[in-house]
Amino acid sequence: MNMIKVGIIGATGYAGGELVRLLLAHKNVEIKWLGSKSYIDKKYYEVYQNMFQIIDSICMDDNMEELAEQVDVIFTATPQGFCASLLNETILSKVKIVDLSADYRIKDVDIYEEWYQIKHATPDFIKEAVYGLCEINREEIKQARLIANPGCYPTCSTLSIYPLLKEGMIDPKSIIIDAKSGTSGAGRGAKVSNLFCEVNENIKAYSVGNHRHTPEIEEQLGYLAGEKITISFTPHLVPMNRGILITAYASLKEKADGSLPSYEEVKAVYDKYYNQEKFVRVLDQDICPETKWVEGSNYVDVNFKIDPRTKRIIMMGAMDNLVKGAAGQAVQNMNLLFGLKETEGLELVPMFP
Amino acid sequence: MNMIKVGIIGATGYAGGELVRLLLAHKNVEIKWLGSKSYIDKKYYEVYQNMFQIIDSICMDDNMEELAEQVDVIFTATPQGFCASLLNETILSKVKIVDLSADYRIKDVDIYEEWYQIKHATPDFIKEAVYGLCEINREEIKQARLIANPGCYPTCSTLSIYPLLKEGMIDPKSIIIDAKSGTSGAGRGAKVSNLFCEVNENIKAYSVGNHRHTPEIEEQLGYLAGEKITISFTPHLVPMNRGILITAYASLKEKADGSLPSYEEVKAVYDKYYNQEKFVRVLDQDICPETKWVEGSNYVDVNFKIDPRTKRIIMMGAMDNLVKGAAGQAVQNMNLLFGLKETEGLELVPMFP
Amino acid sequence: MNMIKVGIIGATGYAGGELVRLLLAHKNVEIKWLGSKSYIDKKYYEVYQNMFQIIDSICMDDNMEELAEQVDVIFTATPQGFCASLLNETILSKVKIVDLSADYRIKDVDIYEEWYQIKHATPDFIKEAVYGLCEINREEIKQARLIANPGCYPTCSTLSIYPLLKEGMIDPKSIIIDAKSGTSGAGRGAKVSNLFCEVNENIKAYSVGNHRHTPEIEEQLGYLAGEKITISFTPHLVPMNRGILITAYASLKEKADGSLPSYEEVKAVYDKYYNQEKFVRVLDQDICPETKWVEGSNYVDVNFKIDPRTKRIIMMGAMDNLVKGAAGQAVQNMNLLFGLKETEGLELVPMFP
Amino acid sequence: MNMIKVGIIGATGYAGGELVRLLLAHKNVEIKWLGSKSYIDKKYYEVYQNMFQIIDSICMDDNMEELAEQVDVIFTATPQGFCASLLNETILSKVKIVDLSADYRIKDVDIYEEWYQIKHATPDFIKEAVYGLCEINREEIKQARLIANPGCYPTCSTLSIYPLLKEGMIDPKSIIIDAKSGTSGAGRGAKVSNLFCEVNENIKAYSVGNHRHTPEIEEQLGYLAGEKITISFTPHLVPMNRGILITAYASLKEKADGSLPSYEEVKAVYDKYYNQEKFVRVLDQDICPETKWVEGSNYVDVNFKIDPRTKRIIMMGAMDNLVKGAAGQAVQNMNLLFGLKETEGLELVPMFP
Repeated sequence: MNMIKVGIIGATGYAGGELVRLLLAHKNVEIKWLGSKSYIDKKYYEVYQNMFQIIDSICMDDNMEELAEQVDVIFTATPQGFCASLLNETILSKVKIVDLSADYRIKDVDIYEEWYQIKHATPDFIKEAVYGLCEINREEIKQARLIANPGCYPTCSTLSIYPLLKEGMIDPKSIIIDAKSGTSGAGRGAKVSNLFCEVNENIKAYSVGNHRHTPEIEEQLGYLAGEKITISFTPHLVPMNRGILITAYASLKEKADGSLPSYEEVKAVYDKYYNQEKFVRVLDQDICPETKWVEGSNYVDVNFKIDPRTKRIIMMGAMDNLVKGAAGQAVQNMNLLFGLKETEGLELVPMFP
Repeated sequence: MNMIKVGIIGATGYAGGELVRLLLAHKNVEIKWLGSKSYIDKKYYEVYQNMFQIIDSICMDDNMEELAEQVDVIFTATPQGFCASLLNETILSKVKIVDLSADYRIKDVDIYEEWYQIKHATPDFIKEAVYGLCEINREEIKQARLIANPGCYPTCSTLSIYPLLKEGMIDPKSIIIDAKSGTSGAGRGAKVSNLFCEVNENIKAYSVGNHRHTPEIEEQLGYLAGEKITISFTPHLVPMNRGILITAYASLKEKADGSLPSYEEVKAVYDKYYNQEKFVRVLDQDICPETKWVEGSNYVDVNFKIDPRTKRIIMMGAMDNLVKGAAGQAVQNMNLLFGLKETEGLELVPMFP
Repeated sequence: MNMIKVGIIGATGYAGGELVRLLLAHKNVEIKWLGSKSYIDKKYYEVYQNMFQIIDSICMDDNMEELAEQVDVIFTATPQGFCASLLNETILSKVKIVDLSADYRIKDVDIYEEWYQIKHATPDFIKEAVYGLCEINREEIKQARLIANPGCYPTCSTLSIYPLLKEGMIDPKSIIIDAKSGTSGAGRGAKVSNLFCEVNENIKAYSVGNHRHTPEIEEQLGYLAGEKITISFTPHLVPMNRGILITAYASLKEKADGSLPSYEEVKAVYDKYYNQEKFVRVLDQDICPETKWVEGSNYVDVNFKIDPRTKRIIMMGAMDNLVKGAAGQAVQNMNLLFGLKETEGLELVPMFP
Repeated sequence: MNMIKVGIIGATGYAGGELVRLLLAHKNVEIKWLGSKSYIDKKYYEVYQNMFQIIDSICMDDNMEELAEQVDVIFTATPQGFCASLLNETILSKVKIVDLSADYRIKDVDIYEEWYQIKHATPDFIKEAVYGLCEINREEIKQARLIANPGCYPTCSTLSIYPLLKEGMIDPKSIIIDAKSGTSGAGRGAKVSNLFCEVNENIKAYSVGNHRHTPEIEEQLGYLAGEKITISFTPHLVPMNRGILITAYASLKEKADGSLPSYEEVKAVYDKYYNQEKFVRVLDQDICPETKWVEGSNYVDVNFKIDPRTKRIIMMGAMDNLVKGAAGQAVQNMNLLFGLKETEGLELVPMFP
């Protein structure tokens, strides 16, 4: 089989670096272009010494037109607005795009522009873009040219909640998502707030009530519920490199007889959706997901606990933000786009400790 | 002024060790007895080398009768059931007790016995015991013989929520508390689950739906609201030594005109309750509490965010679990019991970084 | 090709767990037996939840006789003395052994017994055992039945130092090794000294002057230098999960003209030994090895700095203690034992961050 | 007694912040001026939220002339070259200076200029400046106008080594110092290399063979030994906020009879120098210093181990780099300068965990 030629724009951010790690182990892929505006002409391994004697190429400028000639698929691991500002029909007619930024995730461009405070340069492509949450949009992804790779929080949140939402077992208005993320989610920018001494031995909430992943989660949950959904979403910064943990709360609907669904009934719903899903693991009863158990892998571990006292259900999900939350899911999308086995290059055993 | 003679039972746990640190810096206190069943006859500094050349005494057995003769106040930083099993009227007639365990925190002994799975040995003293949350029960504490020093999560939760609850601004049925704690809260017992490699680079929820601090929080909030309250409470283990962060969610009640209270109106309520409180700091608008900003001190930093989209309010609180959440509050209670300045020995500037 | 059947004794320690992770990704291996005395009959994934839905088998008792019938190779990731106490000619005639403990590493049984304070049960096999440092003993390993898998510190120390020692460029009497290790090296035993709160935010030396890896390093360096060598070796515990860093000091011998060798001359020696070695990376000038750059991989990154002021050379090496320092090297040995490509299953790209 | 009026220049760096923390708890001090060029006119607590409701003043520009009018002592916690560029006789005639930078630490201005790559603006004051290592230069400090507050590594190194060096028990030419520091030592500048994800789960050596503290240590040890000394010094970056650990190696001189000094003989030397020193604790036999045992305090814990196999002695020292290594020692110097009790404001019990 021919190798898939890959270009990455934004290869020196944390998500870009993880993409390189995963693609190096992917047997059908050849990396042709490592784009990094900040490090043009520098050896890639000088930016990431883990790649010493593994990658010898240099960082290239961001040139999407040229890239479209040379590769089969472009990953854009770039700031918001970048991909949208460069995309055009000529490019899309030559190459598949997996955009790891938020540019094409939200169908309503007004919402995008309001939450991101950016004018969208190419809103015409939003409709065509497929939201690359593979477990939900698998078939559409296979036919797509342009993939909006989901955000880290939305991936973990949606997968933790959606079976119960889709089956009408929880009250959509009651959903509260309390999220915790490792620090790689904040990127590799040199900011005082991301210094070791500021993050270490510390935990805080941030962007309370206005985090940009909120409308993305709401839109996705809305499709699944068949109605407009408004949620509370609060992210927290945790002193660890990788990992996202979602703790979601919702009111469990009573059954016709006024009783709450049993553990087994709820478990059966999760199993129905995830039995055939390689990357979503529904844990055994009373085992809480831990980020460490999925580190370095493409798994999302989910579980739930029914609280009869409050008639709420607590839904939990853990995932590696750089793998299933970014680079791993991007590769999963690429596999679908090119008709490969969906798990190709992603059968990574989580690393512990 | 005469020095207050102090005995500590359970002096070699993390809360006990912190109590020693704080009492050493307290100008009115003399530590007379460091009790530690596990280390009897061992030098205290051999257990905690930070105390080398500071404390020369040895660890003593747990002898409450004898202690009652020798000291003015006993702190019990011991497992649940210990204090209850030894307390009697003779002891209480001679010495003040500040119990850092949960034995006398919950007024309804059935609830205590159900959640703690322990038969309460001396339920007659429960009624007399005063719940030592100084900001709320200050006057009762001054008259007490027996203080039930509040749990770490209940302290931070109650102080973050109660002004709005008491003023009737939030719906009591809607309260959800998502809590995050550093690992010292798990104690110094040698368990695999508390090993460095298991906790580090990891976050998880635990005791979901059944953590023992739940009924304590519910009881305290219930008093303040004047009605029975049932909450959702989910604690998480965070890879850091110290600190508790509370993120609490509740539905904000509309005003008579159907609008939500403004930032200023909510702020005014917090200020009304905490303006005169040294140890509760209501942060400026949009500043989220961080555990690092209170480390080593007796402060609780609180703040809130109104989310008009969901009509919820997010209330946040950060505190050092070993200080305000245990030893610091115990000293604050002791100050009140003995008529000292409430802040004596507690004017600790948080250590950063 | 037939699959190699593998048994692991001690599969639930950290090194055992890492072995499982690596062998799962090895295309020529089938894991037949996960031995763990502490967890007999428990599902392996209940001990390591990262293995959920990956491994379904249960933990078995330690039965070397039975194992020898069922598998082609046994890995013993067990405490000192275990392997030596069970090994016999019948077992060795049926199965290859890779012993991750120290039992067969040291040729002089008196030294073993003195430093380990254990009576060696089967000293007759010591002579036959091959010290499994593949870069040095490759050919002997291929012919062996019994491999003494090197210790973590000795692996990193020897590979950092030996080219210069073998070429006679440093004074053997002057060697000082200051080593730093992540906490997984201390094992998964439930000890107070390994609790999160004791290790986190802390660094200390331990076993100063008497660490058991000292004679192992001395013996290996002695073979290479052709003379008895005595070194200073001081390990330190670092608050991180994985990684070993070696900082070694030695006096650089002057050349015939009285001058010190140049950077280029020393570099040429390292290159001579490591140019063809996949797993030893000699970094570019002035790049210091960092443990993070090799995490999760089988690489050892080495470099050096000449200090003309003191006429010393500082040699540095970084490695993942659980991979090249334990499980990875064990797999490398297995590959050699069975005539596979030496790097099979070990082409792991280091994970960053 | 009159309060000492204090000004700090560079109050928003980590050392400056620690100085503020310590001075707030000092009963004879009034902070009059918090200088921070980067945050002029910003509330100090907006830079360090731990100071909320504790300090209400704003950050001032750096104006040494004006400061000299207003205060009794100026602390300069500023980059190298700053203090030297502003100092003059007029200022020094009005105010005491404790300079936390390296500007006046090294008596030989050529060495300063070579290692720091800065032209010294006011070399005439170097001779007058007293090196503020209180345990050694106590009497000179009391008479001084200008204190060169020692560097963090030099403080810990010198105090760990000097008794044996001064007594002629170790070979000065054999000294090797392997040092490990927490990340606060790298300052609060926003650099990629100090980001949480780059430092966490990582250890590395840096500035090998050319760290600027090398000549400072050599000069101090040289005075004590009465001869020129050249050492190897290698610092490492450790994933923790605070703490420095020194592991120093030297050849122990044989006694007249050819034997090595005993443990008791070496211990007696350390005791001779440190028996009366509050802030240097010589630990019990075989107890290794740990940075956690001194965190937040002004202590230096030292100990040693004789290795008869190599005839070397391993000397260890642990200290909080921001306290005894910077701000604490600065306060100790201030106490001496103003005739206060040397320990005033510094009787801080180390915080554990």
